[in-house]
Amino acid sequence: MRAAVLRAGQIVVDEVADPVPGPGQVLVRTLACGICGSDLHFRKHGERMVEASRAGGVPLRADMSRDIVLGHEFCAEVVEAGPDTYAPEPGTHVVSVPVVLMGTDLMNPDLVPIGFDNELPGAYGELMVLSAPLLVPVPNGLDPAHAALTEPMAVGLHAVNKSGMAPGDAALVLGCGPVGLSVIAALKGRGTEVIVATDPSPTRRALATAMGATAVADPSEVTAIEAWREAGGREPVVIYEAVGIPGMLATAMREAPRGTRITVVGVCMEPDTIEPIMGINKELSLQFVLGYDPFMEFAPTLTEIAEGRLDITPLVTGEVDLDGVADAFDALADPDQHCKILIRP
Amino acid sequence: MRAAVLRAGQIVVDEVADPVPGPGQVLVRTLACGICGSDLHFRKHGERMVEASRAGGVPLRADMSRDIVLGHEFCAEVVEAGPDTYAPEPGTHVVSVPVVLMGTDLMNPDLVPIGFDNELPGAYGELMVLSAPLLVPVPNGLDPAHAALTEPMAVGLHAVNKSGMAPGDAALVLGCGPVGLSVIAALKGRGTEVIVATDPSPTRRALATAMGATAVADPSEVTAIEAWREAGGREPVVIYEAVGIPGMLATAMREAPRGTRITVVGVCMEPDTIEPIMGINKELSLQFVLGYDPFMEFAPTLTEIAEGRLDITPLVTGEVDLDGVADAFDALADPDQHCKILIRP
Repeated sequence: MRAAVLRAGQIVVDEVADPVPGPGQVLVRTLACGICGSDLHFRKHGERMVEASRAGGVPLRADMSRDIVLGHEFCAEVVEAGPDTYAPEPGTHVVSVPVVLMGTDLMNPDLVPIGFDNELPGAYGELMVLSAPLLVPVPNGLDPAHAALTEPMAVGLHAVNKSGMAPGDAALVLGCGPVGLSVIAALKGRGTEVIVATDPSPTRRALATAMGATAVADPSEVTAIEAWREAGGREPVVIYEAVGIPGMLATAMREAPRGTRITVVGVCMEPDTIEPIMGINKELSLQFVLGYDPFMEFAPTLTEIAEGRLDITPLVTGEVDLDGVADAFDALADPDQHCKILIRP
Repeated sequence: MRAAVLRAGQIVVDEVADPVPGPGQVLVRTLACGICGSDLHFRKHGERMVEASRAGGVPLRADMSRDIVLGHEFCAEVVEAGPDTYAPEPGTHVVSVPVVLMGTDLMNPDLVPIGFDNELPGAYGELMVLSAPLLVPVPNGLDPAHAALTEPMAVGLHAVNKSGMAPGDAALVLGCGPVGLSVIAALKGRGTEVIVATDPSPTRRALATAMGATAVADPSEVTAIEAWREAGGREPVVIYEAVGIPGMLATAMREAPRGTRITVVGVCMEPDTIEPIMGINKELSLQFVLGYDPFMEFAPTLTEIAEGRLDITPLVTGEVDLDGVADAFDALADPDQHCKILIRP
């Protein structure tokens, strides 16, 4: 098959071996795949991500010196089931949490992430194998480009669910990249009345408004907490840190009112310095979050999109084929140019 | 009155003006006062503590270039009430949260901490003024030296209450100074079955056992989490960081099992570096805590001590008069020598 391959730090298009579905697996053809910020990050800092994953969470197996086909935000159509495997009809459109269940112990399988692995190609290729029990059929004839965004939108829902957000709480979202926008959409979905979002990019702030932010601000002009006060925000406030660069946690802790819960959903790979005394004097809490629950958060997010309650149209700012992936990686570096670029292999 | 005075970074005994109780205040004679780690810290880094307090919590007013009478862990006897003020009979033994209510707005008073202030002397002096509404009479003829420990013991109770500890959870206490020991006592008080405590000092580990730890370990020999596993600890585990020096948070986050709540009760005044990806990959949470509730935690702690359910005898390793305070500060630097030294002015 053809695939956009991560090879020695570059994205190149090449022919690679077709994946072969084993028992319990299904061969699918990729219809659409989002380019995720963690794909960009993995290209430059893959070894570090592999190392960090081994200290907790789902360990990555990738050897960065060998080819890797990225892509974990996808919609695909069923081609054929592996041996002794039940699968939906060929042609059925499906999504899946980007994990394949491996090993012979059915009660306690190994989880191998799709899209960060040398053996299991991700959705930057024409074909993938997925685990049959994890397939979720796409309803309502939903555009595969929209179904592919189930994964990043589930991230926001999970962050909001883990944040301990209560009715009447105000939300402050720091950073309006895809992760922050996903949080905003989830907040809107649960009827949060005050959603203040900050981002230095005017394009991103406009997207935040489109996704449900009730007020936006440029953090280089006003602090996030000032923007929240101006927007009539009352306590308690829940802060979502969705930037993921060093210094953001310290900023959030410095600005937070007493007793604030800070949900850390931005992925900061570098060490970061905080001032613990800020946390202590104000009794802050930090909740780090990752991923989503397959049944309680991922599948319901697809339903929200398919039934029109969650409109992700504003997020999609570009589409490319496999030959356009390398340029798309470059284009995504400019937040005023793009938010989410979809690949249609 | 005589007092041990913090003057230009040194503790000196001198005559200072007697405090005069205003309306709503009560003049008391100090019977016993614990020397707290934050007193030692304040002597060296007072300006920083004042600055940090202004960014959240109860702001300190201290001017470090002027005399300060420290002391906020105390028991005292009533001498006389201020004008138009109800107070218990003279001679009544009382404790109080170390705060005086100031200002003319009775519904919204200013809170001024006792023991970190130029105007309000703390319990390193013979006399203090306290706020009448905050006095809690000491029951059962309890030794004032034990009643004085209500304050530090309430810190541990608050930390446990804020930690979200559930029945069946195991606890891991990093550091067995007075704060860690207070946490251990509170855990024991609520019937926690597995309490693993770590400290490099064998003396402190023995105190931890005396206060209720079910297993202790030297963190230079085994990691805290190994000690917890060896002690049969099962998840979920709640970690209490009670050391308060840079690097401890990162260590706790690195060792913590997935989903662990880390309660930060040790007061680290310096900036500290963490690895956010450890928190993210394992969905950890950090809850910073400070102080206690006057009604729900402070007063009930006195009751626990007075009724013999909370035995704080092992903690008291020394007593001095005012002339011995300076030497006591030096002695407390050695964890194998002392835990809590009480001043009897």
